[in-house]
Amino acid sequence: MKNKIKIGIVGFGNLGKGAVEAINATDDLELVAVFTRRNPEDLQINQPNVKALHVDDAADYQDQIDVMLLCGGSATDLPEQTPKFAQLFNTVDSYDNHGEIPEFYQAVDQVARKSKTTAIISVGWDPGLFSTNRVIADAILPNGENYTFWGKGLSQGHSDAVRRVNGVKNGVQYTIPSEDAIEKVRSGSNPSLETAEKHNRICYVVAEEGADQATIEHDIKMMPNYFADYNTEVHFITEEELARDHSKAPHGGFVIRGGQTGANNKQIYEFSLKLDSNPEFTASVLVAYARAAYRLNQDQQYGAKTVFDVAPSYLSPRSSHDLRRNFL
Amino acid sequence: MKNKIKIGIVGFGNLGKGAVEAINATDDLELVAVFTRRNPEDLQINQPNVKALHVDDAADYQDQIDVMLLCGGSATDLPEQTPKFAQLFNTVDSYDNHGEIPEFYQAVDQVARKSKTTAIISVGWDPGLFSTNRVIADAILPNGENYTFWGKGLSQGHSDAVRRVNGVKNGVQYTIPSEDAIEKVRSGSNPSLETAEKHNRICYVVAEEGADQATIEHDIKMMPNYFADYNTEVHFITEEELARDHSKAPHGGFVIRGGQTGANNKQIYEFSLKLDSNPEFTASVLVAYARAAYRLNQDQQYGAKTVFDVAPSYLSPRSSHDLRRNFL
Repeated sequence: MKNKIKIGIVGFGNLGKGAVEAINATDDLELVAVFTRRNPEDLQINQPNVKALHVDDAADYQDQIDVMLLCGGSATDLPEQTPKFAQLFNTVDSYDNHGEIPEFYQAVDQVARKSKTTAIISVGWDPGLFSTNRVIADAILPNGENYTFWGKGLSQGHSDAVRRVNGVKNGVQYTIPSEDAIEKVRSGSNPSLETAEKHNRICYVVAEEGADQATIEHDIKMMPNYFADYNTEVHFITEEELARDHSKAPHGGFVIRGGQTGANNKQIYEFSLKLDSNPEFTASVLVAYARAAYRLNQDQQYGAKTVFDVAPSYLSPRSSHDLRRNFL
Repeated sequence: MKNKIKIGIVGFGNLGKGAVEAINATDDLELVAVFTRRNPEDLQINQPNVKALHVDDAADYQDQIDVMLLCGGSATDLPEQTPKFAQLFNTVDSYDNHGEIPEFYQAVDQVARKSKTTAIISVGWDPGLFSTNRVIADAILPNGENYTFWGKGLSQGHSDAVRRVNGVKNGVQYTIPSEDAIEKVRSGSNPSLETAEKHNRICYVVAEEGADQATIEHDIKMMPNYFADYNTEVHFITEEELARDHSKAPHGGFVIRGGQTGANNKQIYEFSLKLDSNPEFTASVLVAYARAAYRLNQDQQYGAKTVFDVAPSYLSPRSSHDLRRNFL
């Protein structure tokens, strides 16, 4: 039997838990250990062969782990963790602070080249699959325009903003791509669209007892940056309804390019995702790129990489011959 | 100024003509010559700096052309041309005889390795972009099912079949993906679907004078393989309507994967194209992969390659830094 690629996970939040499931769904990857900053005994991994360990002990596992999945957050965890772990391991992370990616790349690349490791950064769906589609569509249809729509999806940042409003006990916010805007883009007319014209916002709010709903609705809708520029709906529901109907983390979106070729022929390129569970899907993408990180490292492709540097065959557990025969 | 990548085209049908347009739309590629089996003086290329030459003279241009786009047909042209041209040039072709791809790959690979050229085979959208999406979706969501739908599109083979029916003067056939089937797949229910359940067929027919329309309709709908298993519509139109409404070559389709992660969360991955001009879009894909063929060859990646072997960054005229900053 072929040796499996040995995986470690750093961080056991929703993304780390999704990664455990995603590794279990493969035949060629094997989870060795989950590393945490918490007390490892508190982790409920429920996998008899998987160790729960403190993150400070990770260095001892350098010879037993082929690729480390870094499942921390982009704000503070990954800027510190990726350069540190890339000294010892091949890594895959989901760094999604778009504006800071070039600097993050440089920092990781320097370490990984020196350590002869392969670190694939900013993996997931945006950044990730959406990014590769923006690049491919732009390369194929140079005369055209890229459009990215997000949703329908639960937005953590906007939900937090709703919950900070006076009189709000609990609540969630969904970002909804505007059907009108999508249809305009799909028609190939390449309209000018601000982010606020491409997306609507729907809030489900549990009000505190005695709070005035009209005031809450007004305060949400007038909130600058978050809601004021958008078509925003506010619905009041009970705590029970919130728990029953809004406890999943769905997300998704669309990348559409409208291009022209020849004598004004319209060509519409579209990629979309509709996800019941954003963290589980993101983790599944990370796991496929873990396969790629291992193989790129075997090919001595050291340094920081992005999804743009990874050929599709590196992601697949199947042989090149199988892919040519059955998928081409 | 950076040197441009120098391109040659073999074959001047719809695909070759589309390639001329697609090269013109780039800033980093330059068309040197079009090679034909016909009398070169009969070609109307309308580009002052582009030579029209006989295909037998191609060998003289080995030093002046970086990548040769092979724009012939899959039935007889490419099986002969790709192995021949891969001895002298990096090549890109659109070989689309799915069942024969493994053998074609072997034949081309042997020649290209020996000649230290890079030959990217079976480029376009299916095989091509659809294939990469089938592979990526399968790699990310191992628990799931791939579905490919074609259309709305003009099918050359089925149009030919319509025109062979007694009493038919002229006609075209469109393959239409079944909306019902697409919705079932998008729901994540992963239904079992035969090709005939996924597609409907619509024929626009010009009848010969005095021919019986009911007989024609019956003969089309009963035709085995082509129509008998399908939901088929036949519409009679005039020669003028045919010329006015049905002279373009639109096509497109969908690749959808419905997958499950974790505790039965549904994840829907979808890629689609809606094309006014199938040959112009296919040519645009070939041209982006010509850029990749040149770069792979510079990297000493010799031999036959497919879309599965090409990282997205190789397709783009933009720098890796630009891609990371503006597209990731």
